Amino acid sequence: MAKLIALYRTPVDAAAFDAYYSSTHIPLAKAIPSLRRYEVSSGPVATLQGSSPYHLVATLTFDSMDALRSAVASPEGIAAAADFANFAQAGVELLIFDTAEV
Amino acid sequence: MAKLIALYRTPVDAAAFDAYYSSTHIPLAKAIPSLRRYEVSSGPVATLQGSSPYHLVATLTFDSMDALRSAVASPEGIAAAADFANFAQAGVELLIFDTAEV
Repeated sequence: MAKLIALYRTPVDAAAFDAYYSSTHIPLAKAIPSLRRYEVSSGPVATLQGSSPYHLVATLTFDSMDALRSAVASPEGIAAAADFANFAQAGVELLIFDTAEV
Repeated sequence: MAKLIALYRTPVDAAAFDAYYSSTHIPLAKAIPSLRRYEVSSGPVATLQGSSPYHLVATLTFDSMDALRSAVASPEGIAAAADFANFAQAGVELLIFDTAEV
């Protein structure tokens, strides 16, 4: 499986971020073709020691890196990425990688 | 489900890192109690634009945040964390969070 992890840095207004993410960004991201699984953190994103710089972590799973790259290049993928400008002003780091269970 | 994501920064000697991770760290981490799933990136950890500062991403899944916190506080969890000093000198960021499929 291939994964895209989105690490959203803590926004100025967390409540507004959460409301926008749920109402608008999730539907946009769920429309991405070939998306097999979409998981979102609930509650704080912490370190073992305490708070982290991140507010939310989303993990999108695809069958392969080819499927992932096609998905992010699709109109729906481009629309979801364009939506970052509307709520992720604090920053979002996207990591993509192939993965296997060990 | 609760997740622990380990983001390993790119080491000086990637081949040595990979060999140690496979031979020694995976067995240590797999011994952690209540671990439900353990996924490791294969190949590069990239951004959509190109290279990332990370070499490897591991995702450990537990039934709950309570199970995760008990697991990392167990002797096996402490041993796995202590092992970072042997191969993760470039740095590792651990993020923990509860998660749900959307």
